[in-house]
Amino acid sequence: MSDISKNKASNLTREIEIVKITPEESKKIKDRIVCEVPLTIILNGIRLIKLKCSPDRLEYLALGFLLSEELIKRDTRVKYVRLNRERWEVRIEVENKIKDRLLFFERRIASGCGGGIAFYREIHLSNYTFLEEKPRYFHKDISCLMEELQKKSLTFKITGGTHCCGLGSKKGIEVFAEDIGRHNAVDKVFGECFVKKVPTEDKIILTSGRVSSEILIKVASQKVPVIVSRSAPTDLAVELAEKLGVTLVGFARGNRMNIYTHPSRIV
Amino acid sequence: MSDISKNKASNLTREIEIVKITPEESKKIKDRIVCEVPLTIILNGIRLIKLKCSPDRLEYLALGFLLSEELIKRDTRVKYVRLNRERWEVRIEVENKIKDRLLFFERRIASGCGGGIAFYREIHLSNYTFLEEKPRYFHKDISCLMEELQKKSLTFKITGGTHCCGLGSKKGIEVFAEDIGRHNAVDKVFGECFVKKVPTEDKIILTSGRVSSEILIKVASQKVPVIVSRSAPTDLAVELAEKLGVTLVGFARGNRMNIYTHPSRIV
Repeated sequence: MSDISKNKASNLTREIEIVKITPEESKKIKDRIVCEVPLTIILNGIRLIKLKCSPDRLEYLALGFLLSEELIKRDTRVKYVRLNRERWEVRIEVENKIKDRLLFFERRIASGCGGGIAFYREIHLSNYTFLEEKPRYFHKDISCLMEELQKKSLTFKITGGTHCCGLGSKKGIEVFAEDIGRHNAVDKVFGECFVKKVPTEDKIILTSGRVSSEILIKVASQKVPVIVSRSAPTDLAVELAEKLGVTLVGFARGNRMNIYTHPSRIV
Repeated sequence: MSDISKNKASNLTREIEIVKITPEESKKIKDRIVCEVPLTIILNGIRLIKLKCSPDRLEYLALGFLLSEELIKRDTRVKYVRLNRERWEVRIEVENKIKDRLLFFERRIASGCGGGIAFYREIHLSNYTFLEEKPRYFHKDISCLMEELQKKSLTFKITGGTHCCGLGSKKGIEVFAEDIGRHNAVDKVFGECFVKKVPTEDKIILTSGRVSSEILIKVASQKVPVIVSRSAPTDLAVELAEKLGVTLVGFARGNRMNIYTHPSRIV
C-alpha cells in the first residue's frame, strides 16, 4: 500500500467569482470554496457505498470507513487499494471472505443511514470491550493539542468549509485529516493509522465536530480511550462513552473544557 | 394529521453532572446537553430507515424525509402519521402505491449514504426544473431573517449542539426547526410546510449549517429559489445551484454575506 497518495491541498479548494456584500459595498471578488466529490467504495468487487467527501487521502477514507463498519479488522490483509480519480472510485481487495460481514453491513445500512451510517444497537455494544487503558493527560496537554489541530486546519482557514480530526499523544498530533464531513475526517485518521500501523490504544482523538453516538462508536471501536471536541456532545454519545469507558471532553477552547465521562484520565 | 405534536423544548435537552475546567479551577457542575434518539421511519408497513435526530417534530421530520427522498410528493394523500415515543417509530400510511418509488429509493440508499442520503446524479437532475421564480429580497431583509433565526435557536443557546433551519419571507420566519443534524432540520421544515400547505416557491431557506450538494438538492426539490447559510458551501453545491437556478448565499453574518450564484434576486 506504499502508493497511497499524499494530501494535496491544492485539490481541496477551488477559486470562483462571488458577490461579496459588506456594510460599505457590494462587489465581485475571487474567493476559494471547498471541493466535494462523490467517492464510491468497492470491496472485493462489491460496490458498497458512495460517500460525499473532500478529494484527498481517499484511500485512507475508504479503509477507515471499512474499519468503522467492521468490514475489515486491524489484522486484515489488504491485497491492494486502487484509487481512480476519473471515476472517483476506490477498489479494495482483501484476503478474507467478506460475505458474512457484508450481510451484517447491509442490515445496518438498511437501518442506519442519515448523517453517517454507524448506529447504536444494544446487542452490538456487547462486541465492544470496556476500555481499561489508563493514559493520563494534563489538561494543558489537551489545550496544546487543540491549538495544534487548529493550526493544521489549512483548508478550513481558506474556506471555512471543513471539519478536522487528529490522533494526538504527548508528542503532538501524529495523524491529521480534514474533510467536508466530520465522520469522514475521523475515518481518514483511522485509515491512515491502519496503513501505517500506528497504535491508537493510548492516544487521544481530537475533533472540531460535534460528538454524536456515531462518532463515539467509531472512536471506541478503535480502542481510543479519550475523545476531545471543540463542540458539543449529544446525550447518547455521553451514555455510550460512560458504558464503553471512553473519556469524553467537549467545548475544549483555550484553557477551558467540559469533561463529560471518566474524568480520571485528565489530571 | 391534526394530532401532530408541537415542539417540546424540555425533551430536547437533558441535565447531567460534568467536570468543568477553567483557567481558575476544576469543579463539578450541572450542565444541559442535547438529546439524540434513533427514529425508525415506516412507510406503508415497510421499515425504511433509522435516523439519528433530536426528539421533537418527528412526524414533520419523517414526512420531510419522504419528500426529500421523493417517496411522497406534495400532492400525496397521507392516511395517517403515528408516532410511537416508546419505540421511536413513525408509521406513515399513504394512498399511493410506493413499490416503484421504493425500488428507486433502495438503489439510492445503496449508493448514497454517509452524511445524509440524497446524492448527486446527473440523470436525476433532469427531474428538477430550473427555478425561474424571481422574488427579490433586500440584503437587509436577509440579515434580519438570519438574526431572527438565531434568536429562535433556543436549544442551541442552551447546549451548543444543534443546527437550525427556517423558511423565511418578507414577513419573517414562518416555519422553524432545530435538530442535531443539519439535514434533519431542513427535512423538519419541509415536513411542516407539507402538513400545513405552506407555499415554498417564493420563500428563502435559512440555515446555520454548511451547504453541501445534499442540502442544495433538498431545497431545489421543494422549489425554494433562495438558500442562505451562516456557513460555507461546497463547490458541488455551488455547481448545482447554478444549474438549478437557486440563489446560494453563504457566510451571512451581520450585514455581510457572500452570494455564490444567481445574485439578481438580492437587491
